[in-house]
Amino acid sequence: MTTNELYKRYKDYYKKFKGYRILFSILEYDNSTIAPIKSLDEKSEYTNFIFEDYMKLKKSNDYINLINELDSKKDRLNPQFKRIAYLAKKELDQEEKVPLSKQVELNKLTAKAFLTWNEAKAKNDYNIFAPSLEKIINLVKEITLLRGETDGNIYNTLLDDYEEGITTTELDSFFNALKSKIIPLLKRIKESKVVINDSFAHAKVSKAKQLKLSKYILKLNGYDYSRGALGEAEHPFTSEISPNDIRVTTHIYENLFFSNIFSTAHEGGHAIYNQNLGKNLICNLKESASMAMDESQSRFYENIIARSPEYIDLISKKVNSLLPKEYKNKVTNKEMYLAANKVEASLIRTEADELTYTLHIIIRYELEKGLFCGTLEVKDLKKEWNRLYKEYLGVDVTNDSEGILQDIHWSCGSFGYFPSYALGNAYGAQILHTMKQEINVGQAIKDNKIKQVIGSYLKKNLYQYGKLYSPKELIIKLTGEPLNPQYFIDYLTNKYEEIYFNK
Amino acid sequence: MTTNELYKRYKDYYKKFKGYRILFSILEYDNSTIAPIKSLDEKSEYTNFIFEDYMKLKKSNDYINLINELDSKKDRLNPQFKRIAYLAKKELDQEEKVPLSKQVELNKLTAKAFLTWNEAKAKNDYNIFAPSLEKIINLVKEITLLRGETDGNIYNTLLDDYEEGITTTELDSFFNALKSKIIPLLKRIKESKVVINDSFAHAKVSKAKQLKLSKYILKLNGYDYSRGALGEAEHPFTSEISPNDIRVTTHIYENLFFSNIFSTAHEGGHAIYNQNLGKNLICNLKESASMAMDESQSRFYENIIARSPEYIDLISKKVNSLLPKEYKNKVTNKEMYLAANKVEASLIRTEADELTYTLHIIIRYELEKGLFCGTLEVKDLKKEWNRLYKEYLGVDVTNDSEGILQDIHWSCGSFGYFPSYALGNAYGAQILHTMKQEINVGQAIKDNKIKQVIGSYLKKNLYQYGKLYSPKELIIKLTGEPLNPQYFIDYLTNKYEEIYFNK
Repeated sequence: MTTNELYKRYKDYYKKFKGYRILFSILEYDNSTIAPIKSLDEKSEYTNFIFEDYMKLKKSNDYINLINELDSKKDRLNPQFKRIAYLAKKELDQEEKVPLSKQVELNKLTAKAFLTWNEAKAKNDYNIFAPSLEKIINLVKEITLLRGETDGNIYNTLLDDYEEGITTTELDSFFNALKSKIIPLLKRIKESKVVINDSFAHAKVSKAKQLKLSKYILKLNGYDYSRGALGEAEHPFTSEISPNDIRVTTHIYENLFFSNIFSTAHEGGHAIYNQNLGKNLICNLKESASMAMDESQSRFYENIIARSPEYIDLISKKVNSLLPKEYKNKVTNKEMYLAANKVEASLIRTEADELTYTLHIIIRYELEKGLFCGTLEVKDLKKEWNRLYKEYLGVDVTNDSEGILQDIHWSCGSFGYFPSYALGNAYGAQILHTMKQEINVGQAIKDNKIKQVIGSYLKKNLYQYGKLYSPKELIIKLTGEPLNPQYFIDYLTNKYEEIYFNK
Repeated sequence: MTTNELYKRYKDYYKKFKGYRILFSILEYDNSTIAPIKSLDEKSEYTNFIFEDYMKLKKSNDYINLINELDSKKDRLNPQFKRIAYLAKKELDQEEKVPLSKQVELNKLTAKAFLTWNEAKAKNDYNIFAPSLEKIINLVKEITLLRGETDGNIYNTLLDDYEEGITTTELDSFFNALKSKIIPLLKRIKESKVVINDSFAHAKVSKAKQLKLSKYILKLNGYDYSRGALGEAEHPFTSEISPNDIRVTTHIYENLFFSNIFSTAHEGGHAIYNQNLGKNLICNLKESASMAMDESQSRFYENIIARSPEYIDLISKKVNSLLPKEYKNKVTNKEMYLAANKVEASLIRTEADELTYTLHIIIRYELEKGLFCGTLEVKDLKKEWNRLYKEYLGVDVTNDSEGILQDIHWSCGSFGYFPSYALGNAYGAQILHTMKQEINVGQAIKDNKIKQVIGSYLKKNLYQYGKLYSPKELIIKLTGEPLNPQYFIDYLTNKYEEIYFNK
């Protein structure tokens, strides 16, 4: 077959895969935002075979032969197809080793486990969820062993699913560098005499007002409303349904409007990345470079932009106008900035401040590594979770819902994802460092030109490349060096020294 | 094969068909309520093949053989399977005659025509839509001819899709009976000296307040929120996604809160029917009996219940509380009742009062009949539309958006549906007549026991049977006689004589 024929055949397959994924994404979005809980079981029961059809197509001999042929001709392919062939062959080599029945088993298991996790969380009882979790972990281990270890370690195989090429060796060194700075800094902050009064941040702001605020934030940040939507979900997420339908969700707590602001900015960051992928990218290269790179953008918009003093100046008037009488138009920009950046060691990852957030991730990383490297068992997981929270954050976990049951990931069979959040923070700080050599970031925010200046820079230097490069290549292309935690450490140190020690 | 084996095989097929339909319903719901317009094309492009897979399965030899075998053993089947086999065989016999390619062509045509119709409506120009409509009609004619005429008439075949067994002969007589009473009554009302002041009904009530009102109405009427959802759409509809997910949508006009109240009650009626189908019904018998029977319930809740004086007494306080200062708590129950039942010959079907509504339907019926029986051409359609509006309703159609472009149906290739609305009204009045011999309808509304008394009656006498009987059998079972327009005529006459002539 000529390369052009191969291209055409691959594109036809991709189109079908994408068709299935569009339907699954809409189903998932619907399940998470609108569908009544009572209907989830029956729907999964009825529609499961369509997911199986999708998997069968991905495992069909015809498709496998196509990928093998593309791979055998890789030196003659154009750059986009060379990358596509590499990624497809890699996926195939692993998937070939896993019987479809195992994948189906995992899907059924996680569909049920999600409900069990919900129940356990509602009833605040880890014991309800533990048996499901154990089953999931055993099955994921079994499947990952079939797929193959990397450097004699199945956790590396899982990490690679989310961040191409990353290993526990690199992550251990990365997280150790962060731990050695963040834990002492957190201790010092706890002893600092600076008291940040954020009582206004707990004032009641109605759902309707907060949804208007979400829209305002998304608009400021450059999200294109005509190619997306805003929804409400229990756990906020971004849904990349199709090129012109990239959706953001938020969760409204009426007594915690900051949560909505930063969560919206976070999901908006994911969405802005995915709305601005290069127009000429084809097939699965029209995606973000990796989970961590995607997280770098969500956390860039959430923290580096939305928690900056310039951004607070920009939104302060609007926020003030929504507050109840007691606080209305009385909160100064400085007070708002400090409240938005208040450090507080707490139990919930998604509500954590920018400093302690990474510690939440490190705990999950260490637990997952233990589970998959055989040094930790599910029966000891809760104890170890609570122990690490005490050791790293200095907090006592007094109930399961706010402890080990807080995250959805494990109930879905997602292991190896958490480090992406921390890598995202570090990529973000490193990108900011380079960006500042070319543009004035603070001024752009001040001038309400986030999209025109910062968005354009990121589009030109990051978004346009989609998945054409591996994240390791991309960060070098973008910043001239590999991932380096020092930029994030410096960023955090500068920020919090100024806030808590007036430096 | 034993009948039990046949049952099992049919159920397996049904499960797959239902799985596809669940995904398509969610896609359609999403497209109509949330998805950005810009994404509709790409999604249909990517997912179309899954619809084709569904059609292929329905046309597979294995399924066809199964249905033929069920049909050949029909005398040995249990009552539910006997009905299932009858319906499936009938569908098969027609579909067998239509090549899959024709159905796919129609789907593609209507997907595009929907966009063209939207554009034409926005630009108020029928000429933009006319060529698409002509193509659709020609293709539907071609397909229907292949499926086969009924009594030498393809429009009968289309009518039967929505109301099993109904023909133009019956409908002509049915509509003539209605026309002969409604048109003179409307003329008299126009000359009546009763002036109904409904200025408060045009007061501005915010979207947020109106959405609360929708929820209140649904709750009063007995809609089960835990097995559904409320959404907003350009054109309100009810979506029967899965047994535990029956959704209602509404459209909010901030200066027309009555529209929302009655539209919500209408869609809620559809939903209540579908939420209360018999638990023991299997496969596709777990659906409403027919489109007209479904409409009988939507219009029962919208008109017979929600426009009754007792219901207005029930909601008046709540409605008053939402009005702007000028009207707040100042509108009497009597004023509200009169405004809710004001007769006004107007252009828009969905906003029509209970009396003139049927005239809107008769116009569409006569036009469709003309188009499919060869006495009317698309090029003359607009002229004829406008002429009939003048003749029956006495109104001048001055623009296309409010005239021939107002309804979505034709752009979707739906012909033969409109009569269901009028049949629904007539069924409703006939059911009410019988119901009143057993329960006190007005008292039940007054006591806020709509669900307990009226809902229970309808569940026991109608909803529980699902699709087990044909609508012709069902109306006899329910009321002791076939469809009889006299009940509806009497209902309208009594109501409007009282309102406009104090009788």
